[in-house]
Amino acid sequence: MHVEADIVTIGDEIMIGQVVDTNSATIARRLNQIGIRVAAKYSIGDDPQAIRNALLYAVGRVQVLILTGGLGPTRDDITKTTLAEFFGCQLEFNPEVYAQLERYLSARGRSINEANRTQAYVPNCATVLQNFHGTAPGMRFEKEGTVIFSLPGVPHEMEDMLEKDVIPYLQERFQLPPIEHFTFCTVGIPESELMLKLKDWEAALPSWVKLAYLPSPGMVRLRLSAQPGHTGMLAKMRELALKTQPILGESLYAWSDQSMEQTVFDLCVDRNLTLAMAESCTGGFLAHGITSIPGSSRFFLGSAVTYSNQAKTALLGVPSQLLEAHGAVSAPVAEAMAVGARKVFQSDWAVSATGIAGPDGGSPEKPVGTVYVGVAGPEGFVTHRHLLLGNQRLRNIQMTRLFALDLLRRCILKNA
Amino acid sequence: MHVEADIVTIGDEIMIGQVVDTNSATIARRLNQIGIRVAAKYSIGDDPQAIRNALLYAVGRVQVLILTGGLGPTRDDITKTTLAEFFGCQLEFNPEVYAQLERYLSARGRSINEANRTQAYVPNCATVLQNFHGTAPGMRFEKEGTVIFSLPGVPHEMEDMLEKDVIPYLQERFQLPPIEHFTFCTVGIPESELMLKLKDWEAALPSWVKLAYLPSPGMVRLRLSAQPGHTGMLAKMRELALKTQPILGESLYAWSDQSMEQTVFDLCVDRNLTLAMAESCTGGFLAHGITSIPGSSRFFLGSAVTYSNQAKTALLGVPSQLLEAHGAVSAPVAEAMAVGARKVFQSDWAVSATGIAGPDGGSPEKPVGTVYVGVAGPEGFVTHRHLLLGNQRLRNIQMTRLFALDLLRRCILKNA
Repeated sequence: MHVEADIVTIGDEIMIGQVVDTNSATIARRLNQIGIRVAAKYSIGDDPQAIRNALLYAVGRVQVLILTGGLGPTRDDITKTTLAEFFGCQLEFNPEVYAQLERYLSARGRSINEANRTQAYVPNCATVLQNFHGTAPGMRFEKEGTVIFSLPGVPHEMEDMLEKDVIPYLQERFQLPPIEHFTFCTVGIPESELMLKLKDWEAALPSWVKLAYLPSPGMVRLRLSAQPGHTGMLAKMRELALKTQPILGESLYAWSDQSMEQTVFDLCVDRNLTLAMAESCTGGFLAHGITSIPGSSRFFLGSAVTYSNQAKTALLGVPSQLLEAHGAVSAPVAEAMAVGARKVFQSDWAVSATGIAGPDGGSPEKPVGTVYVGVAGPEGFVTHRHLLLGNQRLRNIQMTRLFALDLLRRCILKNA
Repeated sequence: MHVEADIVTIGDEIMIGQVVDTNSATIARRLNQIGIRVAAKYSIGDDPQAIRNALLYAVGRVQVLILTGGLGPTRDDITKTTLAEFFGCQLEFNPEVYAQLERYLSARGRSINEANRTQAYVPNCATVLQNFHGTAPGMRFEKEGTVIFSLPGVPHEMEDMLEKDVIPYLQERFQLPPIEHFTFCTVGIPESELMLKLKDWEAALPSWVKLAYLPSPGMVRLRLSAQPGHTGMLAKMRELALKTQPILGESLYAWSDQSMEQTVFDLCVDRNLTLAMAESCTGGFLAHGITSIPGSSRFFLGSAVTYSNQAKTALLGVPSQLLEAHGAVSAPVAEAMAVGARKVFQSDWAVSATGIAGPDGGSPEKPVGTVYVGVAGPEGFVTHRHLLLGNQRLRNIQMTRLFALDLLRRCILKNA
C-alpha cells in the first residue's frame, strides 16, 4: 500500500522568514524512514482561511496530514477554533489535559494561569495527544480516510509527540514498505570532480538504484535510493557503494549518513583515545561539534579557545617570540597550539585551528580564509594550510572545523 | 501596489527531510523587508512535473516566483531543461557564464571539467545571474506579468545572488510599501506569564497594530506589525513597545530583534570591557555564540572548555579538593571557574557554566538539567542555579548559554 502525507507548518513568523522551519524536515525524515512518501510540504500563516484550505486540499487526497505550529497560549484560538469548525465539533474543557498542564507547571514551580487554562479546551471530536514538554496539547482527527495530526510548533515538544503518538500510530494503522536509502560521505572533493571520478561507477549502477549528490561546504554525501517496489536492498546498495573505495580512498569518511564529528567520536571511543583541542578562529565551534554528541565526556577532555595572543601563551604555552615572528595565523603557531593542548590536557591526541575567518582582518600575505589546522599525537605533529575562498565567517568556521577533524581522522588512521 | 511572491525550494533531499531548508526563510525575510508579501512557500522534489506545476501555479497569479535548488553539476538537467521547455526556448552555450566558471575554478586551482562545462548551457530566453561563489548560474525569466528567478540551492551562493540580483531588481521594478515590524526581546519569562503581565498593555494597543509572541527556549520575542495601509509607524510602534518597560524591567534585553550574544557584544564594546569564559557543560557553545559575530576579537579573549576535572584544575586553577568536596557541578566550582578564567585570561569579566546536559549522567541530588552559571567581575562574583527540565542535550546547552550570558548582562548593567 502506497501511503502519502502532506506536511504543513503554520505561523506568520515562518511566512515572513523570522523563524527557520526545522519541523517539516524532522517530520519528513521520520515519515520517509517508515515508508510514507511526502506529497506536499508547505507553510501557511496564522490564518483560518489558509488552515481550512490546507485541510480541504489534504482530506480525501492523501492518507496523512500533519499540521505543526499555530498552537500555544497566545495563539490557540485560530487553529483550534478552525479545526473544531472544520470537523463539526465544539471546543470543550478536557480534564485530562488540565491535569497534565497542572503537573507540567507545578514541576516548574508555576501554577495554572488564565492563559494556560484556555489550553485545556480542545475540540471534542479530537483524540488528545498529551504534551509532556510544554503546555499545548496535540490532537488527532479523522475524516474521509485521512488522519489529521495537529502538533505544537516548538521543536522539542513536536518531536516528542511525533515519536510517541504519531509514528507508532501510523505504523500500526498502515502496511508500510519502507523506502530504502544508503548514504555515504566524502570529504575534500568538489561535487563536479566527484561526479567525474565516479562516472563509470555511476553508469554501471543497476536501474532500480537512484543516485543523488548532496553537497555541503567541504563535503559531499552520496545517497543511493531503491526505487519503489524494490525492498530488502540495503545490503546490495552497501555493496554497490563499497565499489567506490578504490576510486575515492581516504576521502570516504563514513559508510552511513553521519557527521565528521560522529566519525571522530567513534574512532576515539573504539581505540580508547583521549582528545583535546586548541582553537583560535573556530572560537569554540570545534569543541561544540564534539560535545553536542551525548557521551563525549568519555574521551573529550576540553578545548582551549584562545582568541588573544596572551591567552595562547598563558593557556597553551605558545612562546610569545613565535607569535611575534610568524603571527598567530601560521603553521608554527598551529603546531605549538596542538602540542600545547596535548600537554596541558594530558590527552593522547590534540587538534588545533588558527586562521582568519573574516569578513575582515585579512592582509595581502594572509587573506581572509587563510587557515592552519594542526594535529599532535603520540608520534609527532602535522599542520595543513587551507585557503578558503569567500569571506563568509560562519562558513569559514564550519569548513575549518571539518578540515581540522578530517586531518585528525587521517592521522589516527595512519597511526593504527 | 500590492506585490505577492511564491517561494519554492526544489530538492528530493528536502522532501525526505535529509536537509533543512533555510533558504526559504532567508528569502521570505528579505522580501518581507522590502514590502513583498509571501503568498505561498513550499517544497518540491527534483521532478519536472512538480517544477512545471509550480510555474503554472505562480505565473499570472503572483508577480514574483523564486525557485531555489535543483541546480548544480550533477542535477542541472531537470531544472534547466524544464525551465527552457516551459518558457519555449533552448539550452545554449553561454560564453560569459563559461568565462566566469573558468575564473571561479582557476582561483581554486582547478580547471573546467565536463560536468562544469554543461553548467555553461542556459536557456537562451533567460537573463543570466552570475554566480561568484559557485558554479551554477542563476536565471531570470518573465511571463504573463510574473518575474521568475531560479537560484542555486547552496545557501551562500543563493544569498549572494539574492542581494545582488534579486532584491535590487524587485525594488526598481515595483513600487513597494515596506511592511513594518518592530520586534523586542524578553528573557526568562514563560509565554503564558508574559501574556498575563501584558494583558492590559495589549488591550490598549491601537487597532492598526498586530502583536505576536515568538517563544524559543528561555526567551520570548514580541513582534508588533503595522497592518497594511499603515506606513511610517516604526517610531510609534517603538513608543508602544517602550510602555512595557515598567512591567517587564530587566527581563527586556533588547529593543530590536537581536540575540543575547549580540546584546552582550554591544555592552562589552560600548563599555570597553574584555570578556573570558570557562565552560564545562556548554562545551564550547558559549564561546561559539560570541565568536560567530564578526569583530568579537575586539573584546573576547577566549574560553577554557574544561570537560575533565584535571583540565579544570590545570587551566583554571580550580582546587581539586573543591571538585572532590562539591563535585564538578556545583556553585563553588562555577565560582572558581569564573574567577579562574578572569585571572588566566586577564579579562575584566568572566562567565562560567557547569552542569549536566544529559541525556544521561544525572543523579537523585543532581538530576539531568542541573546547571550552575557564574560571573566574576571587578567587584566580585555571583552564581545562579537553574534546573532545566527535559533531558534534551542541545536544548539544555542552548538554555545554559542563554542564562549564563543573561546573568553576565545583568551584572554588567548593575556595575554601571
